[in-house]
Amino acid sequence: MEGHVLALAGGVGGARLARGLASVLDPERLTVAVNTGDDFEHLGLPVSPDLDTVMYTLAGRANEETGWGVAGETWSFMEALAELGGETWFRLGDKDLATHVERRRMLEVGQTLSQATAALSAALGIRHRIVPMSDAPVRTVVETDEGALAFQDYFVRRRCEPLVSGFRFDGIEAAGPSPGLAAALADKALQAVVICPSNPYVSVAPIVGMADVADFLDARNVPVVAVSPIVGGRAIKGPAAKMMAELGAETDALGIARHYGARIDGMVIDELDAALAPAIRGLGMAVRVAQTVMRSESDSRALAEETLAFAAELGADAR
Amino acid sequence: MEGHVLALAGGVGGARLARGLASVLDPERLTVAVNTGDDFEHLGLPVSPDLDTVMYTLAGRANEETGWGVAGETWSFMEALAELGGETWFRLGDKDLATHVERRRMLEVGQTLSQATAALSAALGIRHRIVPMSDAPVRTVVETDEGALAFQDYFVRRRCEPLVSGFRFDGIEAAGPSPGLAAALADKALQAVVICPSNPYVSVAPIVGMADVADFLDARNVPVVAVSPIVGGRAIKGPAAKMMAELGAETDALGIARHYGARIDGMVIDELDAALAPAIRGLGMAVRVAQTVMRSESDSRALAEETLAFAAELGADAR
Repeated sequence: MEGHVLALAGGVGGARLARGLASVLDPERLTVAVNTGDDFEHLGLPVSPDLDTVMYTLAGRANEETGWGVAGETWSFMEALAELGGETWFRLGDKDLATHVERRRMLEVGQTLSQATAALSAALGIRHRIVPMSDAPVRTVVETDEGALAFQDYFVRRRCEPLVSGFRFDGIEAAGPSPGLAAALADKALQAVVICPSNPYVSVAPIVGMADVADFLDARNVPVVAVSPIVGGRAIKGPAAKMMAELGAETDALGIARHYGARIDGMVIDELDAALAPAIRGLGMAVRVAQTVMRSESDSRALAEETLAFAAELGADAR
Repeated sequence: MEGHVLALAGGVGGARLARGLASVLDPERLTVAVNTGDDFEHLGLPVSPDLDTVMYTLAGRANEETGWGVAGETWSFMEALAELGGETWFRLGDKDLATHVERRRMLEVGQTLSQATAALSAALGIRHRIVPMSDAPVRTVVETDEGALAFQDYFVRRRCEPLVSGFRFDGIEAAGPSPGLAAALADKALQAVVICPSNPYVSVAPIVGMADVADFLDARNVPVVAVSPIVGGRAIKGPAAKMMAELGAETDALGIARHYGARIDGMVIDELDAALAPAIRGLGMAVRVAQTVMRSESDSRALAEETLAFAAELGADAR
């Protein structure tokens, strides 16, 4: 493939595949559009957890242990805030704080989230294009047995404990794709859309739930491939499998395939799940079996190469 | 003395005498009213340098080396901000940041600066009353050969290098004393006002420049004593002596005495400056010679005791 690739990503899993794609594709050939449904204002600062995870990961600065924040982080701010009786349920490291303070400054002077993200990415030495899915606020609300919870309340404060019955994306009707995402969708050179191994309900759904993106996928003329975030019946990271179970879906790659259904042309599943390939093919989509757990940069690169090759084949078949 | 003492304070020198007064006086007997003319918003946060220095000092957490900020501070935030190309001319440590973030949160929900200061003081374990001079914004502007500079621009960014020709306190006409300062001024039990060894132009002038405070001093019925911030012709800390020279004043304790003039009843000068005592007495005020350089807590306590004894004598004389 020589054209452009659009990757749709949430946090850790998305960031790791994006890292692989960035290691394979020249900067002008990749757009990573990132979920902003998890964004929220905390301590007066605009926090964009998925954008930050993707940025830090592409910059080689991600904290691999936590899956969020910066490597070599320090916690003096948080400790002092605790002493003052401040809110400490959402942990902001000293280094990470600089990102939010700078983002706030840029938004305050009227920059869009896209512009702020471009400036932060450049400052972190990232050459590939990371864009928010939208510059308009979309806020994921998790409907649970304890009522509707703002995403971070559910995810961090309540540690994903409440039983999930559904999701709502406040603001999504009014939110259009960011200029970078819109440009990628309109790009004549677009050759593939990759749905990264991110949580389909809370990371991918807000992106593909925007009308312009949904319309694009429905009328697509490029292959759309998803990488399953579920391996061996478990999510690599996060509550995806728990959510699937609570929503009555099969907690495996077949469940993911059913979820995406006609919106994708093919799915990459893990070697562990090879036995599910026939059933997934039975849904009318192509399947590629690969090693999908990305522990290292070379894992990320290998999965990116495999995914791009798979998409290229699907693109060639369609011609 | 059994009554109430009102101390007027700026940063380091004021904080150190306030620490001494707090070690001598029970909490209900002391109000420390602190200059807010240096306050400014930085990186979206409300920074109150003198209030913080007084709070940190009374809490035993002041960074004695720098004269600002918290002991054992770390700088991860600032380093990360520098990498992002953010504004680093005013240094905010990781721990110190928590104070500003909490203050911002409290102001955002409609608390006054007095209320925020009381809450922060309590959280830091301070039992004595530290109050801002006013809850209304007063902003010190330094008139220089490079034009009018906001105080922190002059003080930190330009390192006090421009030549000073005067000062302006924007907002002072509309600013009334904070409730705590007003209560101290109206307190029937008030027995003395202590002007701490702070910069007379930029730390004390904003406080005593408020109409209600000026009127109180003009009509006072309690002794007002000032501790000279100039020792041996030099300021212990900060640009006071440089400012005096540029404004054409004698850069010594006599210059300070002339500056305060009829607004004070007595001045505490350092042993080094004992020779100036007759000239200062010639201005019509009492003089006490003492060891005024406060390196340790016991220095602070000794100077506080000396200053209070001096004020008590002046009060007794006046009866």
